[in-house]
Amino acid sequence: MHSIDEILASLSIEEKVAQLWCGGRCYELTELSGDEVDIDALLARFPHGVGQLGRPSTGRSLDAAKRLTSLLQAAFRKRTRAGIGILFNEEGIHGLMGGEATVFPAALGLGASWDPDLVEAVYTAVAAECRARGSNYVYAPVLDLGRDPRWGRIEETFGEDPYLVATMGVAAVGGLQGRADRIAPDRVLACAKHFVGHGIPQAGSNAGPVALGERELRRDHLMPFEAVIREGNVGAIMVAYHELDGIPMHANSRWISAVLRDELGFAGMVSSDGFGVPQLATVHRVAGDAADAARQAFTAGIDCEVPEPLGSSSLAEEVRAGRLTIDVVDRACRNVLTAKHRLGLLGAEGPSEPESGVADVDRRANRALALRAAEQAVVLLTNNNSLLPLHAATTGTMLVCGPNAAQAHLGGYTDPEATGVSVLDGLRARFTTSTVSFREGTRITSEPATPATWWQDDVDLADPAADDTRIVAAVGAAAEADVAVAVIGGNEATHREGWWFDHLGDRSDLTMAGRQDELVERLAATGTPTVAVVISAGPVDVRRVVAAADAVLWSCYPGELGGEAIARILAGDTEPAGRLPVTFPRSTGQIPIYSGRQPSAGRGYLHGDASPLFPLGYGLSYTTFSLDSIRSTSSLVAADELTAGSTVGVGVEITNTGARPGSELVRVHVDDVVASVAQPQRLAGFSRVQLEPGCSTAIEFRLGAAAFALLDRYMQRRIEPGDFVITVHAGDQVESCTIHVGDEADTLPDPPRRA
Amino acid sequence: MHSIDEILASLSIEEKVAQLWCGGRCYELTELSGDEVDIDALLARFPHGVGQLGRPSTGRSLDAAKRLTSLLQAAFRKRTRAGIGILFNEEGIHGLMGGEATVFPAALGLGASWDPDLVEAVYTAVAAECRARGSNYVYAPVLDLGRDPRWGRIEETFGEDPYLVATMGVAAVGGLQGRADRIAPDRVLACAKHFVGHGIPQAGSNAGPVALGERELRRDHLMPFEAVIREGNVGAIMVAYHELDGIPMHANSRWISAVLRDELGFAGMVSSDGFGVPQLATVHRVAGDAADAARQAFTAGIDCEVPEPLGSSSLAEEVRAGRLTIDVVDRACRNVLTAKHRLGLLGAEGPSEPESGVADVDRRANRALALRAAEQAVVLLTNNNSLLPLHAATTGTMLVCGPNAAQAHLGGYTDPEATGVSVLDGLRARFTTSTVSFREGTRITSEPATPATWWQDDVDLADPAADDTRIVAAVGAAAEADVAVAVIGGNEATHREGWWFDHLGDRSDLTMAGRQDELVERLAATGTPTVAVVISAGPVDVRRVVAAADAVLWSCYPGELGGEAIARILAGDTEPAGRLPVTFPRSTGQIPIYSGRQPSAGRGYLHGDASPLFPLGYGLSYTTFSLDSIRSTSSLVAADELTAGSTVGVGVEITNTGARPGSELVRVHVDDVVASVAQPQRLAGFSRVQLEPGCSTAIEFRLGAAAFALLDRYMQRRIEPGDFVITVHAGDQVESCTIHVGDEADTLPDPPRRA
Repeated sequence: MHSIDEILASLSIEEKVAQLWCGGRCYELTELSGDEVDIDALLARFPHGVGQLGRPSTGRSLDAAKRLTSLLQAAFRKRTRAGIGILFNEEGIHGLMGGEATVFPAALGLGASWDPDLVEAVYTAVAAECRARGSNYVYAPVLDLGRDPRWGRIEETFGEDPYLVATMGVAAVGGLQGRADRIAPDRVLACAKHFVGHGIPQAGSNAGPVALGERELRRDHLMPFEAVIREGNVGAIMVAYHELDGIPMHANSRWISAVLRDELGFAGMVSSDGFGVPQLATVHRVAGDAADAARQAFTAGIDCEVPEPLGSSSLAEEVRAGRLTIDVVDRACRNVLTAKHRLGLLGAEGPSEPESGVADVDRRANRALALRAAEQAVVLLTNNNSLLPLHAATTGTMLVCGPNAAQAHLGGYTDPEATGVSVLDGLRARFTTSTVSFREGTRITSEPATPATWWQDDVDLADPAADDTRIVAAVGAAAEADVAVAVIGGNEATHREGWWFDHLGDRSDLTMAGRQDELVERLAATGTPTVAVVISAGPVDVRRVVAAADAVLWSCYPGELGGEAIARILAGDTEPAGRLPVTFPRSTGQIPIYSGRQPSAGRGYLHGDASPLFPLGYGLSYTTFSLDSIRSTSSLVAADELTAGSTVGVGVEITNTGARPGSELVRVHVDDVVASVAQPQRLAGFSRVQLEPGCSTAIEFRLGAAAFALLDRYMQRRIEPGDFVITVHAGDQVESCTIHVGDEADTLPDPPRRA
Repeated sequence: MHSIDEILASLSIEEKVAQLWCGGRCYELTELSGDEVDIDALLARFPHGVGQLGRPSTGRSLDAAKRLTSLLQAAFRKRTRAGIGILFNEEGIHGLMGGEATVFPAALGLGASWDPDLVEAVYTAVAAECRARGSNYVYAPVLDLGRDPRWGRIEETFGEDPYLVATMGVAAVGGLQGRADRIAPDRVLACAKHFVGHGIPQAGSNAGPVALGERELRRDHLMPFEAVIREGNVGAIMVAYHELDGIPMHANSRWISAVLRDELGFAGMVSSDGFGVPQLATVHRVAGDAADAARQAFTAGIDCEVPEPLGSSSLAEEVRAGRLTIDVVDRACRNVLTAKHRLGLLGAEGPSEPESGVADVDRRANRALALRAAEQAVVLLTNNNSLLPLHAATTGTMLVCGPNAAQAHLGGYTDPEATGVSVLDGLRARFTTSTVSFREGTRITSEPATPATWWQDDVDLADPAADDTRIVAAVGAAAEADVAVAVIGGNEATHREGWWFDHLGDRSDLTMAGRQDELVERLAATGTPTVAVVISAGPVDVRRVVAAADAVLWSCYPGELGGEAIARILAGDTEPAGRLPVTFPRSTGQIPIYSGRQPSAGRGYLHGDASPLFPLGYGLSYTTFSLDSIRSTSSLVAADELTAGSTVGVGVEITNTGARPGSELVRVHVDDVVASVAQPQRLAGFSRVQLEPGCSTAIEFRLGAAAFALLDRYMQRRIEPGDFVITVHAGDQVESCTIHVGDEADTLPDPPRRA
């Protein structure tokens, strides 16, 4: 095997540049049509090889995808001079976006689990399903902070909090890539995205400018990227569409080269986002044309352009014309080759041995995992008079209604043909001794939305007037039922990635579309106990629903077994284990509102409550817990000891005080009482506990340097002496204690004297 | 006269520190009570002198204020060792906040005039009214950009646009201070505020953190400050409450010392905002206590603390204890003395000669000016079928209703006892041959709000149910009338400065309080022509009103003659000359939305229009205009010529195409087609024209370096070669042309050859 440098030296400029391209998405390449592949034509189009090809699994069966990738891989490895294998990139933020693949809950639903082990398991399954099709590179995880619920891509995030997102991000990268530098044949190269700050576009409008000071950007938004680089050895990072203070990220040499490369030491591949290179000209207008855009993007530090070589097609010419140094092409190509080397795609390299020993997909196990993930994605917001769980044996008649009842909503980046278990199907399968009837009640869109709707540019909202008879029918049926379940929210047509000016997806209003609030109010007005199940891409305005319904559950798109999970939760077979990974505002006008704002934020509104409707971490259980006995292993610690790796333990005891087994989320927040730079309270640890009724357990969090450090006025990470208030939360229970961080003199008491 | 350095050298540390204090606000000092002044007690409290005393005019008649300031000034000049005169600070953002003073339209109303000459005249009057009372220092103008209509202080701004705010700010400083370095006895020291970026607090919540990149902060928010320093020689600048990226402005040495002092060359006095120093401890928690806060604030570059010496009272002790260098106190004191020297307050100095020759207040002239200003503050938003102007002679019966009809709303920072002409009074006085009846219609607050309400912590919204009979009465009367005028909006209780956690003022919802929308809808449903006059602190949600009413006017608080101005406009004696200085959003969820956003902003919303309801500069006239014949004096200019001071002229011709005389606002925007840093379209000039029917005039804008320059990647101001599209707007008329800025080679064509 030749070294990467040797391979690089052996390549012509055309061969190098070809490695910087994605040749296209397989469903758009004219050389591929269904099962037909015109290899000669494809090789003629890419005679010098190709860095990547996109999405071979979309719209294809497992077998067809596998055949396609094998054919292409063999052709390019054997029939191009350099013989370099192809990176097949896939979408996989909540399951591989491909035919016959498992659809897990959307990332925000995975965030609601607060369970990194679950997240690692899910992305391990994604990797295996991907690799079974011959694909080797997945555009996940999303590490953006979901801090604006107007933004249609909030479903793709793990939530709003840096610590939560970083923890889930590291778990996801571990699942996708495994732990080894050489990636095993049941693992894939991961691409963390979108670098950096993408979750807070101006006015919630996708890809809008991001306004932030550098300290907040680093502390909150950069932190998850730092984690997946240092703890996860992530192979690729995708740069975001937005600009930072006038400098588009795709041309931002400071953040890509000085920060990501030099400071964070990222040694992997930096990818453009789809069409992000030409957008330097068409959106940001910092480039005159696509060639100028590519010259700027690659010079800034981007290593490959996807999904098509719109700008990079001119790179060889740019070098020859003296407008671009070959060093830039060499650097980019080296980084692509390094990524390919991790997958064994260079020269005579073959794939490494399986890491887990299981390269075949166990679809049944993955569906079981999807069910478990869905159960952990569902958050119980209200449960008046403990209406839930329902007793399946004694529920005589159940009315199920609402626009999201009969259809499984799987969210964005799902194969257009994918299907799942709807809530209606789930309830019918679970409540077998009940009479489960269905009335539509209201519509959101004129046609029910499916994953395919997500791709449509134009979407029509339903005519509210046409709901008159639907509502009357549902309310009439509810009046006769023992319980009414309204499944409402949003869908793939009302909130989604607004990827272009003709394909919008953000919302200026969090109110649920159409007459959904009214439906719930009228159901509840019948006196029949009413459960609202809200399924949506992110926080929506649930005030009217919370006021009207007896119980309200919320879930981000819960995956292909979401309907089964929700039925099991309603029946009490399992509990609603999700806890909010994002703040639910009271109103659109409170935005931005999230946990961890600066101390001067949110003074209040004159005629409106400034508190959130439901805060980060919120979620009821079917049982109750108490929290007590907080203690720290030390009330005094030296800053330099923390810097050297010491930790302080903070312990609490939690008891299941109710009558049912259940799980709770326990979180620890750190508040630097006086700091040289204003600091928010920050999440510094979390843990889930499962307890039988009457049982207790002790939990200890270890707080290290990261929990106490700040970025000082000189942007240096530093621990300042002083008091830190440590607060532990479990549901509505709170315990706190104070730890004093001292300078050296404070913290080195005399050694104990011998008696 | 001794030099400032000599005076400084002669002062004890206590005398120096005393100059850094405001001793308190006159209405709170226990030594002052009504007309009683216990000078001995006050001198005992401030034996070393006092830098400032606050608001002698509030709640006092002109004569009483004059007596008080004379007494105090004489006592401190004669009976303290150093004999330094007092700065008497006053509020005066739209008229002196004092008894018997003229109340002009709120600053946002002055912004709507787009008339810097008017603004200069208003602040000239403010200065004269202030000086007539012996006060010499005014906390104006506000240079914040009003870019979030949730923020209660938006009424204090001149609008959202940097160029507009800078132009008005320079005019205001010219009016307050005059043009001379030694301030004339009918002028005052001006204090521009709030440095810097204060207009976009997070979530519209007053004094919340400001999130911005440095380039946008400099280009947009710093620019008006730069203008009043360089063009206006402003005497003082007040630092804002907020933090920038974790660093509170009151402790922000970089922005105060490095940028404001060293870079912009500001040589005046830097003031704290009221209680801003101790808030470093109580809000931002970057200081342990008030003494620590003062040490940080003065070290960062603050020269005086207002309104009380809560932190600075410890400065002498801090110096003696070695925690603070005397150099900091000396620098601050020198800056205070420099400001006082401009007013002739040092040693044997007396005031300079009157500049204008008129030191006495001509209250009648000022009221005439207030009327003219109000006429220019009112914006006509809609006028279906040219309902307006009404014909006074043929208007038989007029119903006036609505919560803002019978009360003049004067806005914040108005003397609590101030009164004005209500719209009802104005209409009754103008429509003398009509029967003008009044029904309240609806209420906003349980008691009508007045300027005094602004001071109350708790305010009650009216019970909407209590409006039932009021609405019925108004609608009944409307049905019998020839025209209905509903005066609605907000008041001093619904939107205002939220100055503390127990005195809130921001809004999370732009909807007008109570049943005001419904009132207008029901009035219009009678078929009687309905005019809505919306008076509010800033943009409110007028969608329902616009849909229902036949004509809609908006004004920020229009000052004491606002009712007369509105009556004159409705009667057609004058025209609605105002043009919006801020964008009216369609909904709260579009925020932030303003003119001059980055090119990637505002991609759009899936089920909502992303355009504003009414954009910057919008406003109808009673006549119509056409715009044509755009031309530039050159289509090619060299960057270095612009840098050297050259300008390019852009001319248009505007014609009054209607049947009435009228005025129009003509604006020019510059768009840098391709730039190294993403640039918005920017306002670069404006002009008002007044034309008789059928008449035309030519307008020429001179565009210089500022119109073409950007802050490049290295934060250097630079003009880049390339095309610039120049767009001229007048109402809905638009003309544009392109100017090419070339590098030297481009722009030096061969000299014309001799034939």
